[in-house]
Amino acid sequence: MSSSHWEEFYATHLPPNCFEDNRSLLKEFCDRHFKLESNIVLITSGGTTVPLEHNTVRFVDNFSAGNRGSASAEYFLDQGYAVIFMYRTKSLEPFSRHFTGQQLLDMLELHEEGMSTTITVKPDSVDVLAPILDKYKNAQETNRMLYITFTSVVDYMWLLRAACECLAAFERNALLYLAAAVSDFYVPQDEMPTHKIQSGHGAPTISLQLVPKMLAPLVSLWVPLAYVVSFKLETDENLLIAKSRESLNKYKHKLVIANILQTRKNRVVFVTQNKTYDVLLSKEQAHKGQEIEEQIVSDVVDRHQEFIREGEMQQLQQQQQ
Amino acid sequence: MSSSHWEEFYATHLPPNCFEDNRSLLKEFCDRHFKLESNIVLITSGGTTVPLEHNTVRFVDNFSAGNRGSASAEYFLDQGYAVIFMYRTKSLEPFSRHFTGQQLLDMLELHEEGMSTTITVKPDSVDVLAPILDKYKNAQETNRMLYITFTSVVDYMWLLRAACECLAAFERNALLYLAAAVSDFYVPQDEMPTHKIQSGHGAPTISLQLVPKMLAPLVSLWVPLAYVVSFKLETDENLLIAKSRESLNKYKHKLVIANILQTRKNRVVFVTQNKTYDVLLSKEQAHKGQEIEEQIVSDVVDRHQEFIREGEMQQLQQQQQ
Repeated sequence: MSSSHWEEFYATHLPPNCFEDNRSLLKEFCDRHFKLESNIVLITSGGTTVPLEHNTVRFVDNFSAGNRGSASAEYFLDQGYAVIFMYRTKSLEPFSRHFTGQQLLDMLELHEEGMSTTITVKPDSVDVLAPILDKYKNAQETNRMLYITFTSVVDYMWLLRAACECLAAFERNALLYLAAAVSDFYVPQDEMPTHKIQSGHGAPTISLQLVPKMLAPLVSLWVPLAYVVSFKLETDENLLIAKSRESLNKYKHKLVIANILQTRKNRVVFVTQNKTYDVLLSKEQAHKGQEIEEQIVSDVVDRHQEFIREGEMQQLQQQQQ
Repeated sequence: MSSSHWEEFYATHLPPNCFEDNRSLLKEFCDRHFKLESNIVLITSGGTTVPLEHNTVRFVDNFSAGNRGSASAEYFLDQGYAVIFMYRTKSLEPFSRHFTGQQLLDMLELHEEGMSTTITVKPDSVDVLAPILDKYKNAQETNRMLYITFTSVVDYMWLLRAACECLAAFERNALLYLAAAVSDFYVPQDEMPTHKIQSGHGAPTISLQLVPKMLAPLVSLWVPLAYVVSFKLETDENLLIAKSRESLNKYKHKLVIANILQTRKNRVVFVTQNKTYDVLLSKEQAHKGQEIEEQIVSDVVDRHQEFIREGEMQQLQQQQQ
């Protein structure tokens, strides 16, 4: 399957369970925010899996805990956006990401008074927890956040297209922030064994195929007017900018945010059609607990708003002609 | 590398970062509980990864959220055991496993009174949270739980052996409950590319090698007197018992707990040298919120205690002769 044959991918891979439920949720969320004239962002986050067996015991995974996506979601909410957060099951979620494992349990205190039991947050943890909890409740009360989960690359493909179908109506007001680490390779369904591969037969060789690049139909067909941002993660600095520019030339979207695995929390490179510049988090900022995602989102929002204004100007000019 | 060449595996794979720190923690924990004459269990939980690149972006993973291991840890604590919980980073942990993602945040209420802010657990969530929090605090206060994390199969191998070195002194009082889903295959370090595999060069073929079965040296050399339980997960019912018995004959340990991927929450099969029997969770029990791990642990503890008594009897007989 060549990388342009995205239609064949959908034709040969069934939609995931709950696909129709998710599609309804997406439609309801988008319709509501369309009426409210909200700015809206689709964030994808976390890695996709490629199962090696139909009854999946083993799979190839892409490294991504979902830090970038889940942190960015909070900052997009701060900027007034409605957020569709499409993320890998069990990867980090906004708000709860601040407390991994048993950290929240450690903040709690049990009080037994006679027959009555109460649980409170320890006073010295309130300062940390209160602002996060406040923002979490606010996102809930204003219904500005929709959570959608995927696991495999096939789930991701179906949900991404469904989200785009709902976002198309927003035209330039839609922002796509594609931070998920999507598998490049997969095992075709007809070459996949039904049962767990048995180690007694010796070590297997896994033949992988290229996953079609969905950015092509996404930009040219599904949401042709939206502001589309993709991410590029490399481990080799020498390839980073060249590969980002190659992607931009090929898919004609607006922005690639490039980063190196080892330095991704302190530095990203913004690559647009005509510019390349660094966004950095200084050591002082990091020590103060600031996150680079705050700056990334602020910069992306500025570019998106400028893009919206350009569209309005173009419309005005067309009306005047 | 044949499956018996476990020594070569250690010789060619460096120990993970923080290995010495973890070894000290294991030693301190085991020494303390040895003096207390505690029963002790090593639980391994979650899946191991096999990196496909040195700067790891992609890896092969084994399916395991860590449900079995993390639930079992709580029941072993209930039974008075000291617990070494050796688990995959970010897989489920005892206690916090009951609250995934944002569930704990949903239980919290923010109160602002003038300048003072407090956070409490909503009254209708206290009933659910209090007993879990109580057990969590108890495990902390009695220092009966040690957490050790791994990610790759190489980390796992090094930590498993280090734990065994500390557990050997417990002789029959040590229980090994090896619930982790360990990779059967890996990519040898010298065949691994340094940087992220580039999709532009076409889809790669990954050649995997067999991971040596550590159960062999573990049972025969590292903890020869301990009660060792392994787990067998299959998707094909027809292979389940045969493969469990094959494992038991090969490694000569005490018990295989066998389960089928699709039914693993309601049924397991205990396979010992001379018996095979089901442990089941009925629908009524499941509806009441009971977990099959409570029964599994109770049965395993009975067997372990019987095994300890047998050892004491043998010692007594030897002294009388």
